[in-house]
Amino acid sequence: MASYEQILKRVLIKIKPSEKEEKRIKELSNRILAIANEEAAKYEGKAILAGSLTRDTWLPNKNEIDVFILFPKTFSKEKLEEVGLKLGKIIVERLQGKWKVEYAQHPYIRGVINKIQVDLVPCYHLSPGEKIISAVDRTQFHVDYLNKKLPEKLSDDVRLLKQLLKANGLYGADSKTSGFSGYLCELLIINYGSFIDLLKSACQWKVKEIIDIENLWKQQDYHHLKKKFKDEILIVIDPVDKERNVASPLSVEVFYKFKKIANQFIKSPDESIFFKQKEAKLTPSEFDKYLKNRGTEIIAVVFKPPKIVPDILWPQLRKATKRLEAILREYEFVTLRSDCWTDEKNLAVIILEMQVGELPKIDKIKGPLVFDEKNANNFAKKHEKDAITGPFIEDVYWFVEVNRKWTTAKTKLIDSLSEKEKILMDKGIPNYIAKQIAGGFKILSEDGLKKLLNNKEFAIFMKKYFEKENLFI
Amino acid sequence: MASYEQILKRVLIKIKPSEKEEKRIKELSNRILAIANEEAAKYEGKAILAGSLTRDTWLPNKNEIDVFILFPKTFSKEKLEEVGLKLGKIIVERLQGKWKVEYAQHPYIRGVINKIQVDLVPCYHLSPGEKIISAVDRTQFHVDYLNKKLPEKLSDDVRLLKQLLKANGLYGADSKTSGFSGYLCELLIINYGSFIDLLKSACQWKVKEIIDIENLWKQQDYHHLKKKFKDEILIVIDPVDKERNVASPLSVEVFYKFKKIANQFIKSPDESIFFKQKEAKLTPSEFDKYLKNRGTEIIAVVFKPPKIVPDILWPQLRKATKRLEAILREYEFVTLRSDCWTDEKNLAVIILEMQVGELPKIDKIKGPLVFDEKNANNFAKKHEKDAITGPFIEDVYWFVEVNRKWTTAKTKLIDSLSEKEKILMDKGIPNYIAKQIAGGFKILSEDGLKKLLNNKEFAIFMKKYFEKENLFI
Repeated sequence: MASYEQILKRVLIKIKPSEKEEKRIKELSNRILAIANEEAAKYEGKAILAGSLTRDTWLPNKNEIDVFILFPKTFSKEKLEEVGLKLGKIIVERLQGKWKVEYAQHPYIRGVINKIQVDLVPCYHLSPGEKIISAVDRTQFHVDYLNKKLPEKLSDDVRLLKQLLKANGLYGADSKTSGFSGYLCELLIINYGSFIDLLKSACQWKVKEIIDIENLWKQQDYHHLKKKFKDEILIVIDPVDKERNVASPLSVEVFYKFKKIANQFIKSPDESIFFKQKEAKLTPSEFDKYLKNRGTEIIAVVFKPPKIVPDILWPQLRKATKRLEAILREYEFVTLRSDCWTDEKNLAVIILEMQVGELPKIDKIKGPLVFDEKNANNFAKKHEKDAITGPFIEDVYWFVEVNRKWTTAKTKLIDSLSEKEKILMDKGIPNYIAKQIAGGFKILSEDGLKKLLNNKEFAIFMKKYFEKENLFI
Repeated sequence: MASYEQILKRVLIKIKPSEKEEKRIKELSNRILAIANEEAAKYEGKAILAGSLTRDTWLPNKNEIDVFILFPKTFSKEKLEEVGLKLGKIIVERLQGKWKVEYAQHPYIRGVINKIQVDLVPCYHLSPGEKIISAVDRTQFHVDYLNKKLPEKLSDDVRLLKQLLKANGLYGADSKTSGFSGYLCELLIINYGSFIDLLKSACQWKVKEIIDIENLWKQQDYHHLKKKFKDEILIVIDPVDKERNVASPLSVEVFYKFKKIANQFIKSPDESIFFKQKEAKLTPSEFDKYLKNRGTEIIAVVFKPPKIVPDILWPQLRKATKRLEAILREYEFVTLRSDCWTDEKNLAVIILEMQVGELPKIDKIKGPLVFDEKNANNFAKKHEKDAITGPFIEDVYWFVEVNRKWTTAKTKLIDSLSEKEKILMDKGIPNYIAKQIAGGFKILSEDGLKKLLNNKEFAIFMKKYFEKENLFI
């Protein structure tokens, strides 16, 4: 078995940017920074580079540069926005690039220069320790902190960590991934001192592990911290803001997946774990086999995804899935499992695997307490025409039996979704998804889904759906 | 339309005992009373007649006589029992009858003399208003009260009421019927002054109607009374004990059924309502039709009923039915309706009509919170071998999928019931029923049940099961 060092060395050869790429991107970023500073100076402002470029922890094929333009605190919010956008446009134009306005917490300019995406984000220039005004103001502190605390010799360890996470789908604090941000990677390496020591420690991580590099909290505060971050599985105190958990976007699944990968590498180190493996697709015959063995019915709602950023699309799609499950359950159709998937462009799919997808023709409806005469009267009147049996009494409640309106989950789904946008939203379907579904959707059963397996990414998703990984180490 | 009076007169001709029967039973009861008094005198005791015979409110084919033997309060409970049994035996033997010991709250002698059943119940002799020691002591007060308050001219009204209730299955405070006791009938007639006025009033009865003949409570106590008798639908204060509701055995269904019958008679008086109508049996082809239209599956548990008095048998059978429903629901099999029936001799049947009688081959098991590491470990270990997928995470819980052990309600039922008496009792099946089921049971599906429709009484029961009456007027 090769030693950790040998393997990591071999990996690094593959994942360190080439001198050519390094030269190209550093030249570009220096040029941007020079021009940005020139323009910013006109407003007593100053430009800084943020992100991995500043710390040499970036991976090859880097095509994003983040520049923050710091303006005096005396600027009003309006002025900051206005000047920020104005300068952003000027800077991109001076570099012969193209720009558009993007929106995060505030609008900012995104340019494309020599095929590299450049974000020019305006914020306030603060002194160390000063209270931030907007979340983007925090970045300057992060840059300062890392400049001081992340020694150059640890750059490669950060690179290894990022590469490992990327290959395994755990890199990125975006909604889809719910994984590790670049800053979190850098903090973890600072804390443990090396990639290998991080991995060894991660094997031992307990749930709600607390990492507080600068000891901003005392041991006796830990109980309080776990309560403060009560839904979060890993707590990494931001060295520049002790009230903030840098690991807060991390999902429980990503936490366990990372522990599992750490374990795997520490026990049997192998280079392959650093590189994305070819993922198997579900074949139509495997699909048949799974359905037969599970004895379930799968219903899929298929529609064109809304054109919104993935960070809004994914949470909305997930929420829509949960809502459909809940609506079906109201009508006594029970799902065994559900999931959703989208290519973020042409296809969105909500999967509902039914435990109870069909019900008898008859439905027993529970009425009021027999002691509640007024409501009993209303109940009897309401069901005067549709009651097949009753009103009758069981224990102390009135009941009637009526013909069930929807005897299959599929027909109920079609009924619930065949509505205008507004009504879908009233049912709890998030706005963008509601609009798309109101514009048209399809309900697919087994056969339709089997055809959809032609879509490679969907077939990979379905394979994982059925072969849900054991996350318990 | 015939007038109420005309109809009631015609009914009375049919339901008044013949002079011959009256003479025969009065002679017998006088003879018993004389001998009982003779024997009781030896212990400073005294015998009284109780029940309908004393008030001439009995119906033809009467074959029961109740005699209470009142002993001095100075007797210990043990002595009361001992002397009571001893005298009971002597009395029956002196009348050339056969006796056996029966058990209610205390043991007593039941004799059969000239085909008439004679109960000889010992109790304490109390002064009016004195606190009773055992429930049987109350009877002497009831006898006294009715002797004073029920005028002879109302006897026929009581008879009409009893006959109406009997014909419609509402007469008797026993567990099976949960209906009107004889004493309750007498009190209702005293209160309303006539059969017709009772029926007219019953049409207007609200739930938790309060009838307090002797005004033992004030109007402002009524709220308290409704709370005191919170599960009871009709409140008839016992004139000899204001803390007691004579109507407490009345079920909600009997209450509404009585209101319905009262309405029917008052609106369109007809003699036929006083006589038991021929009840329709469910035919096998009707059975098929109902199942098809309802789309349900019916499973029946069939066994020999235990040899116990109906007042224990019926509650146990009902409780067993509820328990089986609950056990199935634990395993995600949902019943739409359930019921039970027995001929009290050879056949007991528990009917379970399934809403969800079949489930997928796969079962998703919910584990502990992801934050609960200790239990998560146990959960993972427990399912190490049987987990088909997982442990995986959904929201903040661990889950595994395993092969479902019972995919049909029928197999689960067979599994749950194929146990020793003791284990069945641990599962909440009442003791006598548990013993019988442990001794053998059958699970019938549609075909088996269709054959069972050969049993006339069962076929009548099943007809009512499917055509559940509208009890709402």
